[in-house]
Amino acid sequence: MTVKQLSLPQLVEQCARLGVPGIGLWREPVQAYGLEATAKLVRDAGLTVTTLCRGGFFTTASSLDDNRAAIDEAAALGTDTLVLVSGGLAPGSRDLAAARARITEAIAELAPYAGERDVRLAIEPLHPMYASDRCAVSTLDQALEIAGHFPAEQVGVTVDTYHIWWDDRAPAAVARAGAAGRIHTFQLADWTTPLPAGVLNGRGQLGDGVIDLRGWCDLVDEAGYTGPIEVELFNDELWRREGAEVLEETLARYLAV
Amino acid sequence: MTVKQLSLPQLVEQCARLGVPGIGLWREPVQAYGLEATAKLVRDAGLTVTTLCRGGFFTTASSLDDNRAAIDEAAALGTDTLVLVSGGLAPGSRDLAAARARITEAIAELAPYAGERDVRLAIEPLHPMYASDRCAVSTLDQALEIAGHFPAEQVGVTVDTYHIWWDDRAPAAVARAGAAGRIHTFQLADWTTPLPAGVLNGRGQLGDGVIDLRGWCDLVDEAGYTGPIEVELFNDELWRREGAEVLEETLARYLAV
Repeated sequence: MTVKQLSLPQLVEQCARLGVPGIGLWREPVQAYGLEATAKLVRDAGLTVTTLCRGGFFTTASSLDDNRAAIDEAAALGTDTLVLVSGGLAPGSRDLAAARARITEAIAELAPYAGERDVRLAIEPLHPMYASDRCAVSTLDQALEIAGHFPAEQVGVTVDTYHIWWDDRAPAAVARAGAAGRIHTFQLADWTTPLPAGVLNGRGQLGDGVIDLRGWCDLVDEAGYTGPIEVELFNDELWRREGAEVLEETLARYLAV
Repeated sequence: MTVKQLSLPQLVEQCARLGVPGIGLWREPVQAYGLEATAKLVRDAGLTVTTLCRGGFFTTASSLDDNRAAIDEAAALGTDTLVLVSGGLAPGSRDLAAARARITEAIAELAPYAGERDVRLAIEPLHPMYASDRCAVSTLDQALEIAGHFPAEQVGVTVDTYHIWWDDRAPAAVARAGAAGRIHTFQLADWTTPLPAGVLNGRGQLGDGVIDLRGWCDLVDEAGYTGPIEVELFNDELWRREGAEVLEETLARYLAV
């Protein structure tokens, strides 16, 4: 998503050239290019798919069938992790607790199905500014509480600095998540202001904002996480630039962190 | 601020006409109209000043002298409460904990001064989307932790639905704040999306959004709070309309809650 202006073949070619060993993919471009074709493209380049994004939206539009399809797609791509953006309030509802209960029920339906396919669901807490319309799971504590109902090899969490950096309880939650084997992916993005209208596409390039990214990397390290680190930026300005250039810049910023 | 298009005399006249017994004021219009003139205007209409907004910004520009002036102004207006918007990260800093420590230090300097003037400081936790640039105090738990260093008659909290509605820990914090006599004001605003650019002026008219406002009123009631309830909306659309009409609408919405 960070360089969505690149086609999948361009992305794979540039990652291979730069020595980026894995890529996180989103369902829509994979479906457009073809599931098996994407799997082959990535595999032939010697890369791995780190995660597939995304399942979820349990409180609104998305069906469990569509989430099962997402799990199947993850398995076909050879990634062990499907990121879940769980959904916000149900239409007409003002009850966040009810939304989280519905999310837990939906995950209970999906977790065994995922486990049978060696895919782990990674509940992503989203920043509280998305609580109403995208994700009623706003903190790592809440995500871990839900994940705790299921085996760690079926359900864990996504740790994304953009969403949790403000939370003084998140460092302890990272440690608990790591001890429980529930950090299923770790994502970096920086926090910059002013936020754009709609607050979706203002994630900062690493180093442009105020998040202590190195500090979060250390916390995740100390929690025992050894998996891939993804950089996920939704940023209109980055998307307007040449994709290969943004990819190179992002890699340099990542290495600087 | 909800009807900032009204002059102070218009505001006072309309509130008296509608039976609104108190008004929360901001420093800038008070200074423009004159401190003593404002105090007399409100007093002569039989109204009270519920709170003065705002002190704070301890991590950046504002000086302690300016905060002492705000305390003096609150006392002159006859309100017992000065709302604090504490400030975000210091320039160049990535350390939210350090910002909160600086905020605590500044309040330690100001609290006795406020107490001697029968003014209470009301630390307002702001939504986490303001953590970097406006207020490093993002939760009611954090605000209470800071307030707990001082006597309740000197320092408490502002409970504003817009800032805390997403937080599953906030109801328990409201109960603790009430039991400790630290709810120094209670403010209503609704949450609507999409958020506007800069995320400052998108607070929803009561009933237009997704917050269970009646539920929060009940929680604050149960916590023993008997003070005024303020409606504080920053909303470009409301500001473009005729002020008296917005005031009437807001009162009707408030009564419906």
